[in-house]
Amino acid sequence: MPQFTPKDPTYAERVRSSFERQQVMHTIGATLLTVEPGLVEISLPYRADLTQQHGFLHAGVVSTVVDSACGYAALSLMPAQTGVLSIEYKVNLLAPARGSRFLARGRVLRAGGTVIVCTGDVLAYPNDLNDPALTAEPTLCATMLATMLVVRNRPDVLD
Amino acid sequence: MPQFTPKDPTYAERVRSSFERQQVMHTIGATLLTVEPGLVEISLPYRADLTQQHGFLHAGVVSTVVDSACGYAALSLMPAQTGVLSIEYKVNLLAPARGSRFLARGRVLRAGGTVIVCTGDVLAYPNDLNDPALTAEPTLCATMLATMLVVRNRPDVLD
Amino acid sequence: MPQFTPKDPTYAERVRSSFERQQVMHTIGATLLTVEPGLVEISLPYRADLTQQHGFLHAGVVSTVVDSACGYAALSLMPAQTGVLSIEYKVNLLAPARGSRFLARGRVLRAGGTVIVCTGDVLAYPNDLNDPALTAEPTLCATMLATMLVVRNRPDVLD
Amino acid sequence: MPQFTPKDPTYAERVRSSFERQQVMHTIGATLLTVEPGLVEISLPYRADLTQQHGFLHAGVVSTVVDSACGYAALSLMPAQTGVLSIEYKVNLLAPARGSRFLARGRVLRAGGTVIVCTGDVLAYPNDLNDPALTAEPTLCATMLATMLVVRNRPDVLD
Repeated sequence: MPQFTPKDPTYAERVRSSFERQQVMHTIGATLLTVEPGLVEISLPYRADLTQQHGFLHAGVVSTVVDSACGYAALSLMPAQTGVLSIEYKVNLLAPARGSRFLARGRVLRAGGTVIVCTGDVLAYPNDLNDPALTAEPTLCATMLATMLVVRNRPDVLD
Repeated sequence: MPQFTPKDPTYAERVRSSFERQQVMHTIGATLLTVEPGLVEISLPYRADLTQQHGFLHAGVVSTVVDSACGYAALSLMPAQTGVLSIEYKVNLLAPARGSRFLARGRVLRAGGTVIVCTGDVLAYPNDLNDPALTAEPTLCATMLATMLVVRNRPDVLD
Repeated sequence: MPQFTPKDPTYAERVRSSFERQQVMHTIGATLLTVEPGLVEISLPYRADLTQQHGFLHAGVVSTVVDSACGYAALSLMPAQTGVLSIEYKVNLLAPARGSRFLARGRVLRAGGTVIVCTGDVLAYPNDLNDPALTAEPTLCATMLATMLVVRNRPDVLD
Repeated sequence: MPQFTPKDPTYAERVRSSFERQQVMHTIGATLLTVEPGLVEISLPYRADLTQQHGFLHAGVVSTVVDSACGYAALSLMPAQTGVLSIEYKVNLLAPARGSRFLARGRVLRAGGTVIVCTGDVLAYPNDLNDPALTAEPTLCATMLATMLVVRNRPDVLD
């Protein structure tokens, strides 16, 4: 993956503060883990009230966390006084989203002045990450390719 | 749009029953409206606890309802004793998801024996659908192109 | 589909002149048919030297004509002194690309100042369009959802 | 990337023979380089007759080679007596396709019995690979996420 230098030295604080304002993250119980230049990770524990008809995490919920991870990976490289909006994304559901915990990782693939392209992955962990006996490998249950817009001069779309 | 003949005469009941088991639909407050052969509509009222950082409905929530609409449009054409899983989808966010109510419409574009391709749209209504003074036109805030899998011989993936 | 008013009154001439400079269109034998505000159609006769291993038109060739149709539909709505570049697209191959002639139609779904979103379709005609006995309906063999960039201030990316 | 064991020991010969039958590859001057289990590379020299209006390789031509690379990466893992068809793909054009030579690399991300998901990349080389003074790094000019179908029991869609 490419290495990036952030344009805004307060990028991590800015991402964390914006994430806090994403009310849906609180609603589904997602938390922000890693924030690095061009890389963001979000954790989501399994909850039965987020499932589809077969008991798997709904594809839209999987998309929600990895879209935020991609969007914030993009925001981490944007100059001050800009905002991020998702233009579009595609997600492939590679395996049913089963597990006790999910890790969504967004990474910037190319950072342009107007458009930032990101890839995202969602890993499903069969046991709790804090389980001392954790031995099982995670499963890659989804992958995303996303296009983010660098929004300028719109006070209602900051960060 | 093409016209379809359902393979399972109980398709509507099957879709409605499966939708009821999608726990995330209850969590976000979505309700199933229309179920016709190859066409499903889902309604989602705006809720602040489903928003991203600028107060718009989160793109992932928009995806959740239109993915379900597409998935159930596909299921409505599947033979009995099968199930539906999303293989992948792409969604373009055409306008910020602002409004009091959102209507997600999924339609089958091509129904194969193994794969069913659907298109989906999300309309944002600036006023409540039940408002007698409703005059404003809805805005097309998202469009989806989705690929659904016809799952056979898997008792854990029925309907 | 939405109706559009072109920002550049010379849009049709501009699209036709740019199409003429797309050397790959000459190489594959594609011709530009319709140019309207937000709508462009391109015709491609079948040629055995454009096929994949089973004798169908290669998916990439199908993409080539419908990407150009979408890109020029977008360009038809852009102001003067701009250029069009494809940011990304997704294409679903709905049926094997068999036929004597293919019609790619690109339409603008939403025209923003920076990004223009288009849908595209490819119809496969089993008989020549000029065949007086033509009775068979065309088959929708591919559908596209594409995001185009409005390029400004780059003299090497005009039209 | 995951490691794979081919189901058909003749996979490389099968891929090479099928590639030879893709007439469009000869038409555009593409050649097959690497064939490994779940990994295929195709080379395409720049040719002016494959360009769009600004002199870059047309996005559809870029898609053509990386779609074939992904499709053959999928075929390399399929059992005997099957064939590969592209269900759909999404491609992001990360940089204008400028260069003297392009390398398309397709890799399998997940191999199911019915559907195989692949990622693809296209690298643009500013100088000829055989140039003894080659110093410039390639540019990632496109990335693809593709879904391939494992076709069974169709004699007209073998390999």
